[in-house]
Amino acid sequence: MSAPPRAGAHAKAGPPRLRFRVRVSLGDVVPIGPGKVDLLEAVREQGSIAGAARALGMSYRRAWLLLDEMNATLIAPVVETAHGGATGGGAVLTPTGTAVLQHYRALEAEAAAATRPHAQALLRLVARERSPG
Amino acid sequence: MSAPPRAGAHAKAGPPRLRFRVRVSLGDVVPIGPGKVDLLEAVREQGSIAGAARALGMSYRRAWLLLDEMNATLIAPVVETAHGGATGGGAVLTPTGTAVLQHYRALEAEAAAATRPHAQALLRLVARERSPG
Repeated sequence: MSAPPRAGAHAKAGPPRLRFRVRVSLGDVVPIGPGKVDLLEAVREQGSIAGAARALGMSYRRAWLLLDEMNATLIAPVVETAHGGATGGGAVLTPTGTAVLQHYRALEAEAAAATRPHAQALLRLVARERSPG
Repeated sequence: MSAPPRAGAHAKAGPPRLRFRVRVSLGDVVPIGPGKVDLLEAVREQGSIAGAARALGMSYRRAWLLLDEMNATLIAPVVETAHGGATGGGAVLTPTGTAVLQHYRALEAEAAAATRPHAQALLRLVARERSPG
């Protein structure tokens, strides 16, 4: 069989899934996108930037850079950090950070609800199973 | 000024824009995504794979691979090619290709219409202008 691994792999992949990724761009910058919003959510859940980075399998440096990009491009910072000791204290979302998270998740949910018939139609166009080769 | 180009660049970037990117995934494979749908649309407009690739600034090989991925993962091929001469003939969308394109664009339009208030709220959180540094 000369089929590449990819072609045979999806027999076990489960049902097809449709996903929205929503980005707010400003020129080449992306002030709000799925990775940044996941990070805000993780900060809210974990209570610190380090904990959020760990929960997402991301380096602390990467998390910090993403938050810094948001802080630099939004109307106000998204995270407030407590200055507590050498290892850094906790972090909480500011009202702006909370607003980004809530509007983004609400937008995703509304988009999914409003587009169900077309989403189902697209999913039905995907072959569930294929004989390899 | 020590600000990196990115930070200063968005003063001239125009207003922020919100964009949906919709993907149908099947395990690690993406049978339907924004690049593939743009390609279907270009094939319909240009009447050939080569013309579509040219219109999108994409290599012929890349266009062919994207179409091949769709053909391999959807219920039927998306493009039908005419065998006309050494340079290859034209190409038209099959009913499946047309269905993917139409449902995808309709889904994008409905998502945008349904989420306008939250989209506006997110866009209002983006700083329009910043003093550099």
